[in-house]
Amino acid sequence: MKKLNYGMVGGGPGSFIGDAHRKAINIDAMATLVAGCFSRTPEKCRETGAQLGVAPDRCYTTFDEMAKAEAAREDGIDFVVIVTPNVSHYPACKAFLEAGINVSCDKPLCLTVEQADELEKLADEKGLLFLVTYTYMGHVTAKHIKEYIKAGKLGKIRTVMAEYPQGWLAYEGEWGGKQGEWRCDPKQSGGVNCLGDLGTHVENAVAHMTGLKIKRVLAKMDIVVPGRVLDDNDVVLVEFEGGATGCFWTSQFAIGHDNDLRVRIYGENGSILWKQEECEKVIMIDRDGTIVERHRGGGGIEPEAAKYGRLPAGHTEGWLESMGNLYRSFIACIEAKQDGTFKPEMVDFPTVHEGAEGVRFVHACLKSNQEGNVWVDM
Amino acid sequence: MKKLNYGMVGGGPGSFIGDAHRKAINIDAMATLVAGCFSRTPEKCRETGAQLGVAPDRCYTTFDEMAKAEAAREDGIDFVVIVTPNVSHYPACKAFLEAGINVSCDKPLCLTVEQADELEKLADEKGLLFLVTYTYMGHVTAKHIKEYIKAGKLGKIRTVMAEYPQGWLAYEGEWGGKQGEWRCDPKQSGGVNCLGDLGTHVENAVAHMTGLKIKRVLAKMDIVVPGRVLDDNDVVLVEFEGGATGCFWTSQFAIGHDNDLRVRIYGENGSILWKQEECEKVIMIDRDGTIVERHRGGGGIEPEAAKYGRLPAGHTEGWLESMGNLYRSFIACIEAKQDGTFKPEMVDFPTVHEGAEGVRFVHACLKSNQEGNVWVDM
Amino acid sequence: MKKLNYGMVGGGPGSFIGDAHRKAINIDAMATLVAGCFSRTPEKCRETGAQLGVAPDRCYTTFDEMAKAEAAREDGIDFVVIVTPNVSHYPACKAFLEAGINVSCDKPLCLTVEQADELEKLADEKGLLFLVTYTYMGHVTAKHIKEYIKAGKLGKIRTVMAEYPQGWLAYEGEWGGKQGEWRCDPKQSGGVNCLGDLGTHVENAVAHMTGLKIKRVLAKMDIVVPGRVLDDNDVVLVEFEGGATGCFWTSQFAIGHDNDLRVRIYGENGSILWKQEECEKVIMIDRDGTIVERHRGGGGIEPEAAKYGRLPAGHTEGWLESMGNLYRSFIACIEAKQDGTFKPEMVDFPTVHEGAEGVRFVHACLKSNQEGNVWVDM
Amino acid sequence: MKKLNYGMVGGGPGSFIGDAHRKAINIDAMATLVAGCFSRTPEKCRETGAQLGVAPDRCYTTFDEMAKAEAAREDGIDFVVIVTPNVSHYPACKAFLEAGINVSCDKPLCLTVEQADELEKLADEKGLLFLVTYTYMGHVTAKHIKEYIKAGKLGKIRTVMAEYPQGWLAYEGEWGGKQGEWRCDPKQSGGVNCLGDLGTHVENAVAHMTGLKIKRVLAKMDIVVPGRVLDDNDVVLVEFEGGATGCFWTSQFAIGHDNDLRVRIYGENGSILWKQEECEKVIMIDRDGTIVERHRGGGGIEPEAAKYGRLPAGHTEGWLESMGNLYRSFIACIEAKQDGTFKPEMVDFPTVHEGAEGVRFVHACLKSNQEGNVWVDM
Repeated sequence: MKKLNYGMVGGGPGSFIGDAHRKAINIDAMATLVAGCFSRTPEKCRETGAQLGVAPDRCYTTFDEMAKAEAAREDGIDFVVIVTPNVSHYPACKAFLEAGINVSCDKPLCLTVEQADELEKLADEKGLLFLVTYTYMGHVTAKHIKEYIKAGKLGKIRTVMAEYPQGWLAYEGEWGGKQGEWRCDPKQSGGVNCLGDLGTHVENAVAHMTGLKIKRVLAKMDIVVPGRVLDDNDVVLVEFEGGATGCFWTSQFAIGHDNDLRVRIYGENGSILWKQEECEKVIMIDRDGTIVERHRGGGGIEPEAAKYGRLPAGHTEGWLESMGNLYRSFIACIEAKQDGTFKPEMVDFPTVHEGAEGVRFVHACLKSNQEGNVWVDM
Repeated sequence: MKKLNYGMVGGGPGSFIGDAHRKAINIDAMATLVAGCFSRTPEKCRETGAQLGVAPDRCYTTFDEMAKAEAAREDGIDFVVIVTPNVSHYPACKAFLEAGINVSCDKPLCLTVEQADELEKLADEKGLLFLVTYTYMGHVTAKHIKEYIKAGKLGKIRTVMAEYPQGWLAYEGEWGGKQGEWRCDPKQSGGVNCLGDLGTHVENAVAHMTGLKIKRVLAKMDIVVPGRVLDDNDVVLVEFEGGATGCFWTSQFAIGHDNDLRVRIYGENGSILWKQEECEKVIMIDRDGTIVERHRGGGGIEPEAAKYGRLPAGHTEGWLESMGNLYRSFIACIEAKQDGTFKPEMVDFPTVHEGAEGVRFVHACLKSNQEGNVWVDM
Repeated sequence: MKKLNYGMVGGGPGSFIGDAHRKAINIDAMATLVAGCFSRTPEKCRETGAQLGVAPDRCYTTFDEMAKAEAAREDGIDFVVIVTPNVSHYPACKAFLEAGINVSCDKPLCLTVEQADELEKLADEKGLLFLVTYTYMGHVTAKHIKEYIKAGKLGKIRTVMAEYPQGWLAYEGEWGGKQGEWRCDPKQSGGVNCLGDLGTHVENAVAHMTGLKIKRVLAKMDIVVPGRVLDDNDVVLVEFEGGATGCFWTSQFAIGHDNDLRVRIYGENGSILWKQEECEKVIMIDRDGTIVERHRGGGGIEPEAAKYGRLPAGHTEGWLESMGNLYRSFIACIEAKQDGTFKPEMVDFPTVHEGAEGVRFVHACLKSNQEGNVWVDM
Repeated sequence: MKKLNYGMVGGGPGSFIGDAHRKAINIDAMATLVAGCFSRTPEKCRETGAQLGVAPDRCYTTFDEMAKAEAAREDGIDFVVIVTPNVSHYPACKAFLEAGINVSCDKPLCLTVEQADELEKLADEKGLLFLVTYTYMGHVTAKHIKEYIKAGKLGKIRTVMAEYPQGWLAYEGEWGGKQGEWRCDPKQSGGVNCLGDLGTHVENAVAHMTGLKIKRVLAKMDIVVPGRVLDDNDVVLVEFEGGATGCFWTSQFAIGHDNDLRVRIYGENGSILWKQEECEKVIMIDRDGTIVERHRGGGGIEPEAAKYGRLPAGHTEGWLESMGNLYRSFIACIEAKQDGTFKPEMVDFPTVHEGAEGVRFVHACLKSNQEGNVWVDM
């Protein structure tokens, strides 16, 4: 088994998401971290590099320098993982794409529709692979739903109810630590909080699993907890191409909800109920209303999804395995490209196109809300 | 214990809801059925009367006749139960109110806002008690939520997510038998289907439990299952007076849902999650996020609610007991009026005012939908 | 519809179970209470009678007197309901059987194996119907399990895990009020507490639903909460005729459990999981491990069970309806006997034979425990 | 951060558990695999070694050779992971202990009580650390329960109900593939199947979490599925020192259960309910019966347990993280020993002593069963 090398932008001391990406890649030991721009401060960058076993000469203080240097090396990185704050996603992605390096970038892809369009175009032109890490789409059960629907088993989809409530930012005068502070700060988050952080996950989960494309949205974005200046509770009405409808809800003050992404899909041949926090199971309801509980690792899971499982049923997998599954397909595709065996249908992860769709979704919602909750085309 | 006498309009052969009202009243044996207009066909009416132990001379073929005759009797009925199809609610209620007889009427109260206004006014002028049987508000857990919120324990309410999906009308070419046929027929249902049948329950559950008053609505009412001519899936955005928001969803094609009324209330001091189908419990979440499961009959239930329980915790009560609880308060109020001990705060059931609010809600939603999903004031 | 008349022994002021039986019979209004021995104190008896609409001359102060007087009347009661403390079950049952009156008696049937044998024999000789009110066996879901197994769909049963934990008697120095006091008192309860109160329900639930007959038991009966003198936690190993095994657990100090009767049945063709507190559903697991949730009122419920439902799926039924279902079959059988249309296969309730088996079970367990947890044949 | 080196015995091509140990260690990248005896066939051993990045000269074909060679190296392994079939556990453990190398061994520790005694003694004499990988005890929620009870918050424990049903070996004529075949074969499994495989997990979970020590057992071990020659369903009654009791159940034919280890602990101050398959939560019931659901990552988790979490609440962790947590403490202890900072209270994993207790438990149960289900002292 060939083992790829990768670099990371972001993920310095105290970073949560950078560490999580590394752990997820570690599980299956499919790639080795060999380069990084972990911090803009040279000292911090080298310190983190040393802890992670990265050679000092591959610890860079700017992503531009890193992109160029790694592209120039014979043994340069096979892909880069971008886990900086949102504002840096666009320039960092652009730098590596231009240098001809495959990219994995945390969601949301970038801040503006123009940036999103550009990154899509650039990745396509360069023929590079581009993973946007909508983590939850790696769950075997999420993949099962995608395959089941793609096979037409649910029939025509009629409506989709999806939500992502959290409760950690419910308290006046409290800002949820470092993680909450930048999300609630217009300067750092790009003028949107809850909808960008959670709403994009909802939008992508629905799009990724159902294959439906949003036609137009009507959004109500509320600022509720006293002292907040950005949205912390959003409801979005959705119309999809082909006639299906949907309603998405996200909140940051829904006390009692940890990380409660849920998707319920109603088709003419049955229904599917899925909760991210109970990711090892999925409720599949037949046309006649028979309620069946399916388990990862157990019977009735679509084979193209089941193959991602590592452990037998009842030996729980979770968030890191889900993230790892995104990387599994991403890395397999990179290897196939290197071997000349790549085919587009091998792509089993959210790409730059799904990432761009998320950005367009946020901006359509912002417009709808600003204009008084009217319908806005995507 | 004095035992009241009552009459019934509707509830003839094959009636579901009339029989259910009788069973609910039977449990505690608080009132005796002594008169009825069970059918417009004299024979059928007397036959049902005979089965139910009603004397032939108190089996009437029109409610007008019944209202007048019973009002004239020394031993006339103490209250009437109106369980006809929706179109007859208004004239029947009016007839008994005008005759000075207390009324229990199934929801929805009536078809138009004008009718609702008139019934409200009439009941107030006559000083009569008027129960609108929003069944689920009789559950001890629903009453607990009402008392808990009334006592200020949840703090300011921020948002309410409520829904009532069913799946029995999901199939093209099938009409759900007699019960479904009249609901789906514009002539019989009054131009609204799912929102009138289920949406009014949602609206009332939220209003009754939280005490919040709707300021304006934005409704999207969809006709989805091929062949339907009335709405079978509705989403309503809500703004309440005082600033809270809400989102209500109802559907008749959500396969896998039987009768799935759910209300989730998010306040500044915690959250409450309630499912009608699991009516014996309620999830109470503290300000700090501690998730507590409370059981009817167990500790932590508000005393004013707990007193309605008949059986110890774990000895399940259900729909009939809930309906019975509405009657328990209604009948106690009638007795108190007769004894001269009545006080307004004794009223612990949805009244004509809540019924009228439901009619106004439906009509505001219809207007919003017709005008392209815009905000409409209540 | 002919309506039967019944009498009650017990059920005076403050009685829980007598009131519950009356409520359960009331729901469907299938029988009228016309006689009673509600208390040994004449005054109390007449007072209760007056409240319940029983004529003073049919309020008796001894059950012997009542049995004889009612047997002698042209319009005497069609059946008697015996809801006294356990010690009086045997003499009361005997008196009414000897007078030729059908009997419904609360569980446990009586105190000794000899009494049980005698009541069985007497009921058979007299050709009378005898209901022992193991309440939970009236649930539609419990009946569904019985019918499903009787039809052979589960295949050979391999093992049964059943339990009935409660937590109300967990506290040293507290005795659970009047209800707990007599149960914990050897003089009133007959030398057994938890196993008699809860264990007999477990034994009957398993026997009634599976049709299995116990061959031998090995019981460990513990006295745990300081101050108790009778068992408050029991585990019983069971071997059934035909080779299946089982393990039953009951407890009164399992804090957090209200009334948590659960039965899990494992057969060669699948499994069934049932919880009394969630009586509206049952988990049916196919041979291939597919987990299906079935709902009362919904698809997949055995027709012979489904017919007992009163309300559509999702309109919850509970304990009173379950008790009512026992009476529904009992009363239908009495009417059939009176009409001459009775057939033994019409009996769809726990009879004196199941009640007697419960008494034999308790005594085999007591012997096993006294002899050091050894196997004792039933 | 110093990074340890480790070796592995077993875990060759097609091995499930060896791969799982490696993945678990990988997550936090705390140790590097540098040596192995992955197979007795030199070719296979080197092939696996090559895939895992182990130098050819550190791929050994016997564990004896490996133990000696690694002990002799300056840069020898810091610990060995033994993941062979059960029969080899004892000799392999012995070889490494004698060579002065810390040991992690999969459960069950070994086959006989004599072997267990010897390994305990040897580890103690050599002053080596010895982890027995009862995987589920690494879950944060399991650790929470342990800390909560150790702090006395549950009060005196009264009874423990624990079980571990699976359904994968339910079918006559099917043997569950390679994994099932050796378990069902007396020659490979050591004369016990279900109780050794699952029962030891139950015994350890209870012992580890409660700190209770078993005094005596009464076991009923049944061979149920036609064709089996070893136990596939076991019930064990337990008495602990200090007076608490317990009942353990394990099965391999309980269709519908994947891997369903559950422990319910009843104390004088409340109860704790824990399910391995829902390892991210634990139900904590207060003395007054208040039912609280606690989440890993959320409030109310004991700090000594909470610190093992990697991700925020609602970002699910699972089996690999649990296994990883065992290694985290094991490795921290090894490092502390090397640094001279080790203290016995740092040991937060199941040791050789818990492993030995599991072996003694199995043998006491075998004896009890052979003698007709009598009490046998541990």
